[in-house]
Amino acid sequence: MTFDRLWDDLAPVGREGSTGGYRRYAWTATDATLREWFAGEAAARGLDLVIDRSGNQWAWWGDPDASGPGVVVGSHLDSVPDGGAFDGPLGVVSGLLTIDALRAAGVTPSRPIGVVNFGDEEGARFGVACGGSRMVTGSLPRDRALGLRDGDGTSMAEAMSAAGYDTAHVGRDEETLRRIGCFVELHVEQGRGLIDLGRPVAVGTGIWPHGRWRMEFAGEANHAGTTRLEDRHDPMLDYAAAVLQARELARKYGIVATCGKVAVEPNGINAIPSRVRGWLDARGADAGAVRALVAELSQDRDVHEESWTPATPFDAVLSDRCAAVLDDAPRLASGAGHDAGVLAQAGVATAMLFVRNPTGISHSPAEFAERDDCLRGVQALTAVVTDLVAGQTP
Amino acid sequence: MTFDRLWDDLAPVGREGSTGGYRRYAWTATDATLREWFAGEAAARGLDLVIDRSGNQWAWWGDPDASGPGVVVGSHLDSVPDGGAFDGPLGVVSGLLTIDALRAAGVTPSRPIGVVNFGDEEGARFGVACGGSRMVTGSLPRDRALGLRDGDGTSMAEAMSAAGYDTAHVGRDEETLRRIGCFVELHVEQGRGLIDLGRPVAVGTGIWPHGRWRMEFAGEANHAGTTRLEDRHDPMLDYAAAVLQARELARKYGIVATCGKVAVEPNGINAIPSRVRGWLDARGADAGAVRALVAELSQDRDVHEESWTPATPFDAVLSDRCAAVLDDAPRLASGAGHDAGVLAQAGVATAMLFVRNPTGISHSPAEFAERDDCLRGVQALTAVVTDLVAGQTP
Repeated sequence: MTFDRLWDDLAPVGREGSTGGYRRYAWTATDATLREWFAGEAAARGLDLVIDRSGNQWAWWGDPDASGPGVVVGSHLDSVPDGGAFDGPLGVVSGLLTIDALRAAGVTPSRPIGVVNFGDEEGARFGVACGGSRMVTGSLPRDRALGLRDGDGTSMAEAMSAAGYDTAHVGRDEETLRRIGCFVELHVEQGRGLIDLGRPVAVGTGIWPHGRWRMEFAGEANHAGTTRLEDRHDPMLDYAAAVLQARELARKYGIVATCGKVAVEPNGINAIPSRVRGWLDARGADAGAVRALVAELSQDRDVHEESWTPATPFDAVLSDRCAAVLDDAPRLASGAGHDAGVLAQAGVATAMLFVRNPTGISHSPAEFAERDDCLRGVQALTAVVTDLVAGQTP
Repeated sequence: MTFDRLWDDLAPVGREGSTGGYRRYAWTATDATLREWFAGEAAARGLDLVIDRSGNQWAWWGDPDASGPGVVVGSHLDSVPDGGAFDGPLGVVSGLLTIDALRAAGVTPSRPIGVVNFGDEEGARFGVACGGSRMVTGSLPRDRALGLRDGDGTSMAEAMSAAGYDTAHVGRDEETLRRIGCFVELHVEQGRGLIDLGRPVAVGTGIWPHGRWRMEFAGEANHAGTTRLEDRHDPMLDYAAAVLQARELARKYGIVATCGKVAVEPNGINAIPSRVRGWLDARGADAGAVRALVAELSQDRDVHEESWTPATPFDAVLSDRCAAVLDDAPRLASGAGHDAGVLAQAGVATAMLFVRNPTGISHSPAEFAERDDCLRGVQALTAVVTDLVAGQTP
């Protein structure tokens, strides 16, 4: 079965021995291996591989410039630190298998079909999520993108160049956008919605408003043994209070808030820190509630917004059509950002399909989907694309 | 003035451009530069350089095997991450200048005088403080010492070998201990005692009991946007609560407690951590109070003792003699551990001199002592050693 072969090919790439989780970061050697794999699968199917100006890979069946715009499926192959196998790759693999299924069924598409592998969706290396799609739409401006630096001080421009990509034309990319008639991204569900509903596949309604904030806590480095409590300016205490308050406020406002990353200087056991830097991720169905949490948490604190994405509804006509093809599949909102959301904000007709996750766990080595549900996902995507390429542009 | 030359020689070694703080870690290239400097100063004075089995450097005026045991002064040259210029080097420099002063005064010592540079006093690289002196006394056993690993996974055995040191004979070192008649360690004060007293130099009474504990907080990695608050097992919240409780307990028990180091996995902005590991440093005049804090903090938590050092009084006869020579200098206890404390626990007659610190700040780039006070420290050490080598073994 082709699904198993594709899945087995990807399984070892970027997997950490100690945790079993994935570390597939943008513009690394691991990333290059994933891109070679994608190019190889495109070639094996006789698809035309196009690398856009931001380094995203597109495998086309049919010419989107001559007879487009096309129907695009796919997702991304990169991961968060110690991420799971499904977030991203399931959409890319399902896209390739959809091409196989259409051909096996003898479908002659009325319009081109593309499978995309968006680069740097998780933002694990440079800190900005959906980097590949945001560069295409221009919502991540050229100068900001290329100037982003990873933990070692390497800029995205340097990393892309080192990986062999020309950064001269990074920026909003009308040519690439013009080829996309609509985008249907299949993704493993990252919550427990489909378990509760007892269904294998859902159609997305949209993406919650969400953002990232950096909290700076300044202190005064000093000796842990010789400095009286009353002489201390210990920023670890301020950080700890903020972490606990963020959780309290999330409950109060009915949203989610997370402090998952912290950086301490000098981070020595016997040294009062000179500085603690913490990050807040906050999201919810109601943008006002998210804003209110951040405003309250920012009182008397040094808090900087690193990103903010308003609520993003997917295309209603396209989503209804997906749901109808899938026997009135249930609808679910997503608390996670996706490339589909970035394209939707740029005016592309976009929909998402979610595949059941038996624990709801994601961004973890424990992230999982049953093989049967993965195959149902491929069938669902095939049914949707069959409908879209048989009829008119939605 | 020789003080300025020695100080200026050391100033650039291992200094970080961004913070101005020092990163002088054991068995690194920076450490090798410091050791070469020490060997050069010993050679310039015609002192005999001896490297003991644990890699500590001893510069002898006179032969401690033939006419010993000797009077030893000195300290260490390594630093904490982003440490200051004075913690350690002031004692080594003052030791060398004491030799110069004795010679300039025409003193003919009745017994040998040694200046020591103990290795790895701060434990910044391998996590165990006073590594060099603990190996000599055997309080850090050979197998544990050599098996300690730094953040990159390099063992101390590998690091010592790479730096050109033979690890075959690491272990309690009777030959080295036999050479030490008494040890007087001069050190910058790391608190505000001498400011309050209006005095430049104090004699130490002893070292507070102190220890280090590791706190393990287990959680479940998951997506920050899609996981309901009630489904989370977020160890950052447990860590934050422990940090705040440690401070409350320190106040309650009248001691100091610090959470200066934390390690988060995977440490991603949009990932609930799978694990947080935090460290506690706790000290105080009363060992029972320190123990009580740790016991209370350990309730329902996974806390591991990494080190514990009981209260260490310095030698009363030797300390009284120092104070008498120094016109009844004030006495101060130390909240910080020192090689002098390690030797005292091993039965060596040991004393300390502290030099005023105008802010009390230590383990920080801001650590400071006035030049005049440094020179008064050299004078004090010279007076003490002159007394010790003129008369009988104390």
